[in-house]
Amino acid sequence: MTELRGPVRIVGTGLIGTSIGLALARLGVVVELVDGNPDNALMAERIGAGSRQVEIEPQLVVVAVPPDHVGAVVAAQLDQTTAVVTDAASVKSKPLADARKLAEDVSRYVGSHPMAGSERNGPLAARADLFDGATWAITPHETSDPQAVDLVRRLAEACGARTVEMSVADHDLGVARVSHLPHLMSALAAGTLADAPSSHLELSGQGVRDVTRIAAGDPRLWTQIVSANSTALTGLLEQIRGELDRLLVALGKEEAGEELTAILGQGVSGAIRVPGKHGAPHIDLVTVLVTIPDRPGQLAKLFADAAESGANVEDLRIDHSPGRPVGEVELSVKPGTVDQLVDALTTRGWVVHV
Amino acid sequence: MTELRGPVRIVGTGLIGTSIGLALARLGVVVELVDGNPDNALMAERIGAGSRQVEIEPQLVVVAVPPDHVGAVVAAQLDQTTAVVTDAASVKSKPLADARKLAEDVSRYVGSHPMAGSERNGPLAARADLFDGATWAITPHETSDPQAVDLVRRLAEACGARTVEMSVADHDLGVARVSHLPHLMSALAAGTLADAPSSHLELSGQGVRDVTRIAAGDPRLWTQIVSANSTALTGLLEQIRGELDRLLVALGKEEAGEELTAILGQGVSGAIRVPGKHGAPHIDLVTVLVTIPDRPGQLAKLFADAAESGANVEDLRIDHSPGRPVGEVELSVKPGTVDQLVDALTTRGWVVHV
Repeated sequence: MTELRGPVRIVGTGLIGTSIGLALARLGVVVELVDGNPDNALMAERIGAGSRQVEIEPQLVVVAVPPDHVGAVVAAQLDQTTAVVTDAASVKSKPLADARKLAEDVSRYVGSHPMAGSERNGPLAARADLFDGATWAITPHETSDPQAVDLVRRLAEACGARTVEMSVADHDLGVARVSHLPHLMSALAAGTLADAPSSHLELSGQGVRDVTRIAAGDPRLWTQIVSANSTALTGLLEQIRGELDRLLVALGKEEAGEELTAILGQGVSGAIRVPGKHGAPHIDLVTVLVTIPDRPGQLAKLFADAAESGANVEDLRIDHSPGRPVGEVELSVKPGTVDQLVDALTTRGWVVHV
Repeated sequence: MTELRGPVRIVGTGLIGTSIGLALARLGVVVELVDGNPDNALMAERIGAGSRQVEIEPQLVVVAVPPDHVGAVVAAQLDQTTAVVTDAASVKSKPLADARKLAEDVSRYVGSHPMAGSERNGPLAARADLFDGATWAITPHETSDPQAVDLVRRLAEACGARTVEMSVADHDLGVARVSHLPHLMSALAAGTLADAPSSHLELSGQGVRDVTRIAAGDPRLWTQIVSANSTALTGLLEQIRGELDRLLVALGKEEAGEELTAILGQGVSGAIRVPGKHGAPHIDLVTVLVTIPDRPGQLAKLFADAAESGANVEDLRIDHSPGRPVGEVELSVKPGTVDQLVDALTTRGWVVHV
């Protein structure tokens, strides 16, 4: 069993790199911080993610630089050290291909992808617990040294993550499906609103808010991510174009019903497969709607009252319809606890709808 | 000024029709309930939405039947009564066109669209306050009698809604943009997940959950909605196909950066125009992340502690990463109250990230 002893060199002290440093520092692992921007490395050092000066050679190098540069930095670290090298990029085939072109020997390289992040960037957004319970994909290639794979797994576990091992190609197709394609679809849907009259935007409800939320993400970062995964994405986008053409043909017909229902039904089949809370695919939850006045302390009162019922709120959403002076909170609870929740809330004066 | 005296005849006692009945009943307006399914009308009567037997001729008829039948029922009511007739369908041009074909005179017809609803259906999901503060679009046509328009406005106001007057064509293009197109994009994105390997679904995060949520809606209902608005939707879908082709061409190039960034940037411009809470387009809110253990009562404790800080929580989200034993709550507050919130929570032992 390979042990993670350190030192661990982190190249790129943004959100991910610095968070890994903080997670390792809490275990007493020596962490070396390197960043092209000296301010970032200094900031990461100041918040306790490691040190900018470490004399001992690293056991492991973690490359957490922007997607476009990952392959080159991985190759450089392979050539300059005898350490195992991993990276944290969200696409795995391009860094591997780039590293293969540039480095002598890539057997010490094992790609990985911690599936955590935030809309925030930079070392100051970093947190020791960013990866607690998160999924961390480990993507060995055919010539990866098994001991290197083991060490990268130790890193993910040390950061508190749950590891999933998969091939580079499978990983990239997976994230194309569950992350990059949804991002592009969100961007295309949102794009049609850029020049729309304000009166149209006034008709917005919760649906369009949900669908377009992620489209607000940084276009430069997403350009790098999407470019790096262009092969997997091209296949999926061609599939979407086929479905879009089918939709357009169906809409042009007098009797489009069956065709449209089939396309929408396929959407239902996909939507219900997306895992919910805590990766549980289908806990049957019942939702209870509660009307709340928009005043300080109302949410606190609601949750205190809900807690007294003994029901655990598994999920919640607030619905904001434009112009409404009151909000609506949707509480999801296990079926067996609905009655006690509704009773408790109604008794305490809440307007509740099941 | 036209007064809403009643009786109001409601044809179709599903969620919307019965909710209108309940809202009017609380003002003492006499409501007549009609439904092709006698069980539905009986149920609506039992919960106090009106009466199945009203001897007096209606002043106003509200048609709240499934989208495909609206025009025919509107025409029948125009011919059978001397009342003003409105409907509650989410698309306005098709009911008008159908009614024009079938009825002698459509000057007493004024379409309308209450922008409220729920994932629940049927009379038992109805609520007197469903429209409180909601937007209710009123869509007169060229030959609509101004007094009829006035009466329909009174109806919406009696239900507690905020009215917006717009043309039939403008309404339909607006809802195509902010409701129907997002639904189809969500369905297409979700559709690619229907046959995906489970290992890919394991990589899901909050983004794909948001984008695909509405795709789970009833395919038969959405087929009717989408078919009824095919003209407006076809234009938008052709625009999407153009962008999709641009995306595919860009992804096929060696240097796709600028083109991709432009497409993604257009998405950002659209996404930030979608109104947030209470229709306010851009309150600058600051988000504070709080880690919470998944145990009963933790949300209650969090909100009680937040309330003691005096900061009003304007919005909140729970992030559920698959497999995480802890959850993360994102609280949005006005910039001036961030410090007091963070202080109050930190003092009380919460792990807080700004």
